[in-house]
Amino acid sequence: MSRCDDLPECGVARFLILLEGPWATLIVRELLHGPLRFTEIKDRLPGISAHTLTNRLRRFEASGLVTRTAYPEIPPRVVYELTEVGEQLRTVLDAMNAWALSVPEVVDAD
Amino acid sequence: MSRCDDLPECGVARFLILLEGPWATLIVRELLHGPLRFTEIKDRLPGISAHTLTNRLRRFEASGLVTRTAYPEIPPRVVYELTEVGEQLRTVLDAMNAWALSVPEVVDAD
Repeated sequence: MSRCDDLPECGVARFLILLEGPWATLIVRELLHGPLRFTEIKDRLPGISAHTLTNRLRRFEASGLVTRTAYPEIPPRVVYELTEVGEQLRTVLDAMNAWALSVPEVVDAD
Repeated sequence: MSRCDDLPECGVARFLILLEGPWATLIVRELLHGPLRFTEIKDRLPGISAHTLTNRLRRFEASGLVTRTAYPEIPPRVVYELTEVGEQLRTVLDAMNAWALSVPEVVDAD
């Protein structure tokens, strides 16, 4: 099973596939605060379904952006964490944040 | 009609609204090369429909990211161009590009 070999040459197009859909970027935003459990991620993203979050986290694992660690405790504890490559997304999200906050809030006079 | 007042406080969430959907970022990627006509943008983005492109460009105009200039020529010429705020998206797309090209192409051995 290949993970990235069908990605386009262009980095921007590649980014959009690896982080396809709005929830993907928001999940990364939360994980940039540190490792989180499934319910912790879900609680921070009102509106996301368990199915979508499960699916997205699995795809991140397959792309090598997130690790899933199950601790042999009772009750069992499962923690999701950005890998080093995933952590490097901080530069992209910082750039998004800085740009978006610079966009003037213009209200038409009419 | 307000354009940005219903945007969230968080810059990343705001970015995702202003550049909602994969085509939005790819349209910006093309316009970062300079002003383009509608058909020129469409030809560079195989798979995009005229309807989607029209709608997306209108939303960019409403957000102040793109200008639309009609030249009184025969046949009429209409050119789309990034505004200064739109042009500043270059930093975000550069960050996307750099990060995505750094993601290792790992192929499972099985």
